[in-house]
Amino acid sequence: MQVRASRHANKLGCGWIFLDMLKGFHYPLTPKGKSTLNPSPPWYYSADFLNIEFWADPSAVKAALPTGLDPDPKADGHASAYFYDWQFSGSNEEYLDPERYQYREFFILVDALFEGRPVSFCPYIFVDNDAALARGWSQGYPKRLGSVFQTRYYAATGKAGPALAAGSKFAGTASAVGQRLAEGVVTLREPVRDPSAFDQRPVVNLLHFPTLAAGKQDKPAVHALVENVPHDVKVEQAWIGDGTLTLPVSKNEELSDLAPRRCGHGIRASMAYIVDDLKTLKDLRG
Amino acid sequence: MQVRASRHANKLGCGWIFLDMLKGFHYPLTPKGKSTLNPSPPWYYSADFLNIEFWADPSAVKAALPTGLDPDPKADGHASAYFYDWQFSGSNEEYLDPERYQYREFFILVDALFEGRPVSFCPYIFVDNDAALARGWSQGYPKRLGSVFQTRYYAATGKAGPALAAGSKFAGTASAVGQRLAEGVVTLREPVRDPSAFDQRPVVNLLHFPTLAAGKQDKPAVHALVENVPHDVKVEQAWIGDGTLTLPVSKNEELSDLAPRRCGHGIRASMAYIVDDLKTLKDLRG
Amino acid sequence: MQVRASRHANKLGCGWIFLDMLKGFHYPLTPKGKSTLNPSPPWYYSADFLNIEFWADPSAVKAALPTGLDPDPKADGHASAYFYDWQFSGSNEEYLDPERYQYREFFILVDALFEGRPVSFCPYIFVDNDAALARGWSQGYPKRLGSVFQTRYYAATGKAGPALAAGSKFAGTASAVGQRLAEGVVTLREPVRDPSAFDQRPVVNLLHFPTLAAGKQDKPAVHALVENVPHDVKVEQAWIGDGTLTLPVSKNEELSDLAPRRCGHGIRASMAYIVDDLKTLKDLRG
Amino acid sequence: MQVRASRHANKLGCGWIFLDMLKGFHYPLTPKGKSTLNPSPPWYYSADFLNIEFWADPSAVKAALPTGLDPDPKADGHASAYFYDWQFSGSNEEYLDPERYQYREFFILVDALFEGRPVSFCPYIFVDNDAALARGWSQGYPKRLGSVFQTRYYAATGKAGPALAAGSKFAGTASAVGQRLAEGVVTLREPVRDPSAFDQRPVVNLLHFPTLAAGKQDKPAVHALVENVPHDVKVEQAWIGDGTLTLPVSKNEELSDLAPRRCGHGIRASMAYIVDDLKTLKDLRG
Repeated sequence: MQVRASRHANKLGCGWIFLDMLKGFHYPLTPKGKSTLNPSPPWYYSADFLNIEFWADPSAVKAALPTGLDPDPKADGHASAYFYDWQFSGSNEEYLDPERYQYREFFILVDALFEGRPVSFCPYIFVDNDAALARGWSQGYPKRLGSVFQTRYYAATGKAGPALAAGSKFAGTASAVGQRLAEGVVTLREPVRDPSAFDQRPVVNLLHFPTLAAGKQDKPAVHALVENVPHDVKVEQAWIGDGTLTLPVSKNEELSDLAPRRCGHGIRASMAYIVDDLKTLKDLRG
Repeated sequence: MQVRASRHANKLGCGWIFLDMLKGFHYPLTPKGKSTLNPSPPWYYSADFLNIEFWADPSAVKAALPTGLDPDPKADGHASAYFYDWQFSGSNEEYLDPERYQYREFFILVDALFEGRPVSFCPYIFVDNDAALARGWSQGYPKRLGSVFQTRYYAATGKAGPALAAGSKFAGTASAVGQRLAEGVVTLREPVRDPSAFDQRPVVNLLHFPTLAAGKQDKPAVHALVENVPHDVKVEQAWIGDGTLTLPVSKNEELSDLAPRRCGHGIRASMAYIVDDLKTLKDLRG
Repeated sequence: MQVRASRHANKLGCGWIFLDMLKGFHYPLTPKGKSTLNPSPPWYYSADFLNIEFWADPSAVKAALPTGLDPDPKADGHASAYFYDWQFSGSNEEYLDPERYQYREFFILVDALFEGRPVSFCPYIFVDNDAALARGWSQGYPKRLGSVFQTRYYAATGKAGPALAAGSKFAGTASAVGQRLAEGVVTLREPVRDPSAFDQRPVVNLLHFPTLAAGKQDKPAVHALVENVPHDVKVEQAWIGDGTLTLPVSKNEELSDLAPRRCGHGIRASMAYIVDDLKTLKDLRG
Repeated sequence: MQVRASRHANKLGCGWIFLDMLKGFHYPLTPKGKSTLNPSPPWYYSADFLNIEFWADPSAVKAALPTGLDPDPKADGHASAYFYDWQFSGSNEEYLDPERYQYREFFILVDALFEGRPVSFCPYIFVDNDAALARGWSQGYPKRLGSVFQTRYYAATGKAGPALAAGSKFAGTASAVGQRLAEGVVTLREPVRDPSAFDQRPVVNLLHFPTLAAGKQDKPAVHALVENVPHDVKVEQAWIGDGTLTLPVSKNEELSDLAPRRCGHGIRASMAYIVDDLKTLKDLRG
């Protein structure tokens, strides 16, 4: 039987992609669409985050880039680290199931060029939630599981709740397989006045799904450069100051190859956005 | 060798209790006081929380009370459920180590009387962090490990971030040993205008530390009614509305004996406080 | 740049698939191949497991099947539940990194037919490890994260270690998102004498990788029936007896639709096998 | 009301300590004794374990000892590291609830003297389970939460399941707060012929329960040297060979002060024992 089109389902406004009489965007595809990891897009996000700007060894950045992306000679190894406390929802109040849809994330973006155009590439990213890992893989984010934490701001401040004020410090940590992979601190200086602090180069990732069939393991089913196109991006309550970051050497890991030679700004803010699309820039399969 | 007094240490302002040349308030007591679960008091806290008021079966409330606490006939089984996203700190910027000191908690308080005085008692409480479990046990909170989550408010609201507005919903869940033990929802109506909504009856707990020695297992080393005396309590950003709560029946658990017959208000707020003391009301050892 | 063939890499015996100068079979593809989730096949496995045979409602089994698989009218809803304590390794002693490569798993297989041939299909499966989730997805196993446990046999038996003897009981549990999804018990009767107890119908899965691009979300990049072809399967220390299984109703889950109407045998054994291939039976994309 | 004696309860053979009409040995004390962390002793254990013998800096060992224990000059910093995969049970088939009662543990024992008698002391110990943490605290083991893993032996050996044979390797790791605290490898040489390899010096611990009351925080409620007295100790399937161990330096931890200067034997075995008593050697409270 052919895969059934979803246009009928979409018209019904029920938010499900129908495939083979089974519902779901990600695994598992099920009769009722309840046990599936994620509902279909659009995907809604809110978060508090820390961002730390840094410069890695340009040759380490270059080594991390996939075919089709080139180093940005002007960038000198420029990169960003992010610690996110996310809340996700679909069209069915998924934010009311926080054990299933709330999560934390750490990732690095490195500056690169795609056919001369300034972009960012994500070589490493860690989350503590499977629905987020699945959505990430669909967007070319190479997610692994890890434990990520950041100092939190509370309306009731005190000695355990830093105020949004000059001098306040917010720390972020990320670990995987019982090893600390990243530690950062943002020290606030002032509210962000210049919105260009958030001019993100578009994120271009390597979308990849391998092939297990013997003799074809060098021919992945999916292997392409894709551009993430989130929309309705809002940033609120943003403060800027200094950032520090370390990427400690850990057994059987290689993030530390991107260890900062120097660090730049640190930002602490809240953001929201929507994801419902992905652009393919270049299919890399032979 | 006698246990060395800490007064000298306190004068030094270094925040350590010295015992036997080893440092630490809780286990482990160590040469440098770095690996110990918690620094000495004072203990500082900030949090966002959900509170749901409910009425349980009064006989189930009575059955949960320890010796020395009596049911409150006026309460008719009145109780409260709480879902907390906490951040803890001592005197050494512990809030900058969120993997170690940030945690989530669910608990129930039931109305009772101590020698005729209205109090609350905590029969069940779950956290996802060992430092918090240890501090809890020192205050008579009978903590076990569990996974607790609550819908979060973000400055950047959106379809995944409910605004602080009438009609917004915030959910809380608590599970232990892979079983769901509590689910609640707070639907906001209005900002809290009447501070008496927070008139907490003082929390009186059963402080307990068993004895393993054969023949003395019915003679706990510690077994007393204690009153928690936090101070500098601040509540901010508080909204009130309706609350709903379920305590599902689960294998080898008994919280469901306190299942709500009806629910009352729901509150979503931020709070901070300080803990550095505990009052013993009554030693219950024979 | 074209994707580089791996044949050269294979001749070097270094076990890596080279793509774009980056190494790795699964995400992330990296310069050194250390941080990647999994090494390339072959993949080696050892495990202790529990198997419980049961019969579900045939209409629920039918509803769970993808296009191309048909119910087996002789099966009457026949299915199997499995609780596995796995250890994985590749070609680089990965079994010496148990935090990264040891894991637990629960899954259900239901009897079905592929073009009249008896097969099994996996509608639900849970693991507690990301490397295992990734390998699963490559084989069409629709893995989600969960917590899975089984009673363990120890050479030093005692009141906490059931012996391999008639009457001994071994329990298995699986939970996800803080809810208990499966509970089973195997009560041993005798060592397995008839190897046909292990005649597994070949596992035919739905290999699936969605498309996020707007307008194409009903056109998954990968959507095919695939047959798992493990080899060198060894089963040791196998005992057979009775099995019991429950699949409790849980919020926003649907495994309970396959709840047993009756149960059959239970098996407790140890097994090992090798995975290095996957057969595509039928591409289901339009 | 006085604390009720448990002798009547024991005669009933129901395994519960009754206190204040509430049941339980550890928190929480409850009406039905179902939600309590642990049943009353006797406590039964089975395990597979790795043991690595090492010599730490004697001055670091000395610094870790509590009052009343003296360094053993003949020991030269002799110590042992252990990685355990435990299964626990009480009198109610708790081994059939593995999510609740199965756990993993890492600890270090250092040689010391108590009034001239050779003993071992436990300065650091990590578990991944709250019931185990509670039982540990009752025995003077200063348990914190951590993630612990060890390579496992399976009856179905293969490239992912090392055989019990000369040359086979078994690794153990322990982490806490996202940092790796210990890594060890045991390489097997031969079955253990000399049972004196297991001559454990008795474990003497520091039993400690702090006091939170202001002004008394230097007067712990419990602070004594206690001797663990397990019985019916069985060791099976034991192999001996070489051991290697590292205790990496980690932020805000101090186990690395005991880092091995050299390592000795490694053992991989299975064991079982029973705990139902604890001897107080010396009360250290002023």
